[in-house]
Amino acid sequence: MRLSQLFLKTTRDISKDEVSKNAQLLTKGGYVNQLMAGVYSYLPLGYRVLQKIERIICEEMDAMGGQELLLPALHPKENWLATGRWDGLDVLFKLKGAGDRDLALGATHEEVVTPLGMTVLQSYKDFPKAVYQIQTKFRNEARAKSGLLRGREFRMKDMYSFHTSQDDLDAFYERSIEAYVNVYRRCGLGDVTYLTYASGGTFSKYSHEFQTVTDSGEDLIYIVPGKGRVAINKEIIDDPEALASILPNYQPGDEKKLETAKAIEVGNIFKLGTKYSGAFDFEYTDKDGSRKVPVMGCYGLGPSRLMGTVAEVLSDEHGLVWPEEIAPYKVGLMCLRPGDEACKKAADEAYAALQKAGVEVLYDDSEASAGEKFAQMDLLGLPWQAVVGPKSAAEGKIEWKKRATGEKSVLLAGAWPF
Amino acid sequence: MRLSQLFLKTTRDISKDEVSKNAQLLTKGGYVNQLMAGVYSYLPLGYRVLQKIERIICEEMDAMGGQELLLPALHPKENWLATGRWDGLDVLFKLKGAGDRDLALGATHEEVVTPLGMTVLQSYKDFPKAVYQIQTKFRNEARAKSGLLRGREFRMKDMYSFHTSQDDLDAFYERSIEAYVNVYRRCGLGDVTYLTYASGGTFSKYSHEFQTVTDSGEDLIYIVPGKGRVAINKEIIDDPEALASILPNYQPGDEKKLETAKAIEVGNIFKLGTKYSGAFDFEYTDKDGSRKVPVMGCYGLGPSRLMGTVAEVLSDEHGLVWPEEIAPYKVGLMCLRPGDEACKKAADEAYAALQKAGVEVLYDDSEASAGEKFAQMDLLGLPWQAVVGPKSAAEGKIEWKKRATGEKSVLLAGAWPF
Repeated sequence: MRLSQLFLKTTRDISKDEVSKNAQLLTKGGYVNQLMAGVYSYLPLGYRVLQKIERIICEEMDAMGGQELLLPALHPKENWLATGRWDGLDVLFKLKGAGDRDLALGATHEEVVTPLGMTVLQSYKDFPKAVYQIQTKFRNEARAKSGLLRGREFRMKDMYSFHTSQDDLDAFYERSIEAYVNVYRRCGLGDVTYLTYASGGTFSKYSHEFQTVTDSGEDLIYIVPGKGRVAINKEIIDDPEALASILPNYQPGDEKKLETAKAIEVGNIFKLGTKYSGAFDFEYTDKDGSRKVPVMGCYGLGPSRLMGTVAEVLSDEHGLVWPEEIAPYKVGLMCLRPGDEACKKAADEAYAALQKAGVEVLYDDSEASAGEKFAQMDLLGLPWQAVVGPKSAAEGKIEWKKRATGEKSVLLAGAWPF
Repeated sequence: MRLSQLFLKTTRDISKDEVSKNAQLLTKGGYVNQLMAGVYSYLPLGYRVLQKIERIICEEMDAMGGQELLLPALHPKENWLATGRWDGLDVLFKLKGAGDRDLALGATHEEVVTPLGMTVLQSYKDFPKAVYQIQTKFRNEARAKSGLLRGREFRMKDMYSFHTSQDDLDAFYERSIEAYVNVYRRCGLGDVTYLTYASGGTFSKYSHEFQTVTDSGEDLIYIVPGKGRVAINKEIIDDPEALASILPNYQPGDEKKLETAKAIEVGNIFKLGTKYSGAFDFEYTDKDGSRKVPVMGCYGLGPSRLMGTVAEVLSDEHGLVWPEEIAPYKVGLMCLRPGDEACKKAADEAYAALQKAGVEVLYDDSEASAGEKFAQMDLLGLPWQAVVGPKSAAEGKIEWKKRATGEKSVLLAGAWPF
């Protein structure tokens, strides 16, 4: 893609409302545009990143046996009354539909997927099953000052699993941890994301959050020593019984010695037990003809929040730094002197060669100064930069830079490292 | 995919509310599930069809230079006041956000894309541009009895183009017609979909609809003789001036001789002129430094309605009939006697061979009777059926059926026609 053809305008003017680093960088880079607090448009560059993150999530959910579907955003009040959350969930958007009917906007989908599961899963033979969707969710947050980290409208992957036994749920839940770890690794956050024990509600000792460590995080986690990237959240730290089962040789007071870190919650998984299946009288017929209530799990991961987290964590003073798998383009190619015929020819050839090799490349062949080009390309944060100037063109060379480290090398034109 | 593992339950029980053929068939086949009138869940089979339609649309929009983005569903009231549609569009869902702020749910996106375009397109050099999204839209329809044809929540591709001259808009508009024709052809509706003249509003003589002829259509179109698949809609038929420019050698009264057909509107394209750019004071700087208002076009096409239309038009008395490009799986493989070891082995081998060849195959290895399997597979409507029974297994053969025509043949196992 030629930069001149892209629907993009990088900018230095940012609304004062945008106090979060992720929204500032993503807005400056032309990735997103705020429509109002907590509500963003994803421009073509930003939507490419979002889609790549969503594709990674799909792949990992498919690999663990999840089946993708799409549930509605408009929900009837009755479904939310059945679970006690019509009045219980303060962020629920409510509105009136035709015939003065009370509706909610989907903030989460237990209220829809549970009765749907009932219609599909009727015999023990139909279990286990797991379905997921990637979809826009709506939550009427009182404060929405964190850019993509806390939206009133945001993208969410939510998976729901249905099982005939706790053991089966437990095994699936463990597999989901592996899948989530894969997602964070592929999005470049593997080294700073912690599997974090959180409170489990009525049906389970714990749930788990995935927390990405960064100074801008709103949460505080307590790192469990000697267990790799494992932590405990604030709810658990006050529960001695839970602590004893997590911390090796736990003695009261040990929790005060734990290292802490600020973090962003980038996922959470939860054993729901029969909480929702019970609320909807969801029963299946077991082998012996008896009627049983299935147990459920739910598994949330927000692609837009993950995109904001990557922007917070992996950026530097020059701008964004995208990991390869989710970068909107892999290479940013710059022609420093498009008015110089030889320079332009060399850059055009490099562009054609990269495209032919199937490399996603963004080509800046504009009239801007070299300094402006460098600054803009750093801001955009593509993993690799390729520079063709009059001198390098004359020598048949291309300057090559790795954005994350600034490491530079010189390539012979055509000898791409891909 | 093995049918036993799919999140699917075909059914004969359909709510009496479901009066439309498309909703009846898609619900029976386990493709969709109604949550309330005009609001559907897309189950895994149905979501596969929807995604394939959406992928085709993306490809055609990309090919004509459209750039994909994602605009929000929550809109501030101010944007809709600016265009006069806060009160003017009766299907607009309205709700309250944090701080008692008035919001609308996106019924269409001129109100969002126009001010966004303003921030990106500032100089004549930035034009032309076209952006599109595929996204859930919300319209509070009074009546929603037509299944996927008229939803309160539905999927929509909406493209918006920005130009510095009417000529440029006109040329792009013509290209969009070709792209739309490609979409309908690839979705199996090419032979029954008519480019249909419709009224053009203030800024243009006409707009165009794409109308798919079928008895269940709510619209009436008047077919223009000798012009291929071209028609006129009801608005135009009462406008002699417009008729004269469309019908060859038009004489008053000619319109009464036109053949008519019932049809479903499956797309519409519109030259907006400066209607929305003017409403938002959208100006760019022209070559000579003067400030000008760009002209715009909009191009709508609903993937979910298109899916419903295919279900209406291409089905038969046995069920759905999907065209190859949008079928959820290409082949439905049935093992008629899974208890018979040789039969099961032959069917398993066929399943493995098809998967290895990259053919999307749905494998029914259940204990159901042959009759049930045939009926269910016909209902599901996959383009091809492959049957392995004890006799054909012993002979190393597979029975092969084309769903659309019922045409049968016998293949040697392994000699697939792909």
